[in-house]
Amino acid sequence: MQLYNYYRSSASYRVRIALALKGLEYVYKPVHLARDEHLAESYAAVSRSRLVPQLQDGEHALSQSLAIIEYLDETHPEPPLLPKDPHHRAYVRALALDIACEIHPLNNLRVLRYLVRDLGLSEEQKNRWYQHWVDTGLTAVEQRLTHEGLSGAFCFGEQPGLADCLLVPQIYNAKRFNCRLDHLPTLMAIHDRCMALPAFSQTAPELCPDAD
Amino acid sequence: MQLYNYYRSSASYRVRIALALKGLEYVYKPVHLARDEHLAESYAAVSRSRLVPQLQDGEHALSQSLAIIEYLDETHPEPPLLPKDPHHRAYVRALALDIACEIHPLNNLRVLRYLVRDLGLSEEQKNRWYQHWVDTGLTAVEQRLTHEGLSGAFCFGEQPGLADCLLVPQIYNAKRFNCRLDHLPTLMAIHDRCMALPAFSQTAPELCPDAD
Repeated sequence: MQLYNYYRSSASYRVRIALALKGLEYVYKPVHLARDEHLAESYAAVSRSRLVPQLQDGEHALSQSLAIIEYLDETHPEPPLLPKDPHHRAYVRALALDIACEIHPLNNLRVLRYLVRDLGLSEEQKNRWYQHWVDTGLTAVEQRLTHEGLSGAFCFGEQPGLADCLLVPQIYNAKRFNCRLDHLPTLMAIHDRCMALPAFSQTAPELCPDAD
Repeated sequence: MQLYNYYRSSASYRVRIALALKGLEYVYKPVHLARDEHLAESYAAVSRSRLVPQLQDGEHALSQSLAIIEYLDETHPEPPLLPKDPHHRAYVRALALDIACEIHPLNNLRVLRYLVRDLGLSEEQKNRWYQHWVDTGLTAVEQRLTHEGLSGAFCFGEQPGLADCLLVPQIYNAKRFNCRLDHLPTLMAIHDRCMALPAFSQTAPELCPDAD
């Protein structure tokens, strides 16, 4: 397998964690978003939508981090990243989507660029925007982890899974943008337990081959 | 089952379509977002994150439209909304996420409000923002539908499924905001075939009990 990714893309980091949890080997293919390598003609042949991450598995090109992780879980079931019970699966997927749909899309590179370049926002306004959506979104995740009775050492129970693959990269980003995190004790305790595992710590952005 | 939803919320519309495709009955519970009913104290007991849609199935509260639709597909398998082959499932999920992660989060009500109220954008800037993300996102979906060889009468093959549940509400929104759609022939042909089916047309926002 080949993973087209960018060290700082949190969607890429999610897939790196999932591959590591599954113990799967892959070739790391860097695509430097900040240098616009995803807009190069050569990348159109890899990804028509010019996004990372993109996983090439034999003849199959797979995109969208959540779809890639579900695919990995279906094709390499051990260790499972989703529970078996449909209600528990829905809980884990909803947590993942709370991050993937409510936080990350508002704060990714192309959106921040649009805010600054096209709408003329100041650096201070951009950072306030970023922090607003992180705070709103992570507060909702904390509430869920605390009150729904399904979290344990990790987002669901005692083993890391899909939701943890999304949580850790989101916290990584939140720290980069100096977001407040001290009001999220359950979430941060789960984050810290994840970071004690090599699948999370050794795939971190700063350890990637393309880290600046 | 009880579905907490808002007629104009496209995430709610996705779930209404899925329930209709499955032939499942439910009680329609309106939550008027534009009148801030989701912020009322009484709604906190239903949804801590104060989002719609929310599906109550017996004692289980389910959130996030994609997680709800996957849950419905797992608990009521016929007709299936996802194919069986893992590569095909990944294709359908990625299409759904191309809409759920790349377009919709940038254009939902709370984000548009933030742009206007907190960042002081003009109506014209807000509309340009909206149209930009719809155009970028749907162009990528059109490319995929045209070139990946898996679409047919619908996004995948000859039966409507998960990706169609997301496509139709997104086009509904795009029309409301006068987005250009004439450069998306494959996507619009699929949309029109969906709208010929009662599961899509009879769950449309203007036919909901809470439509203004």
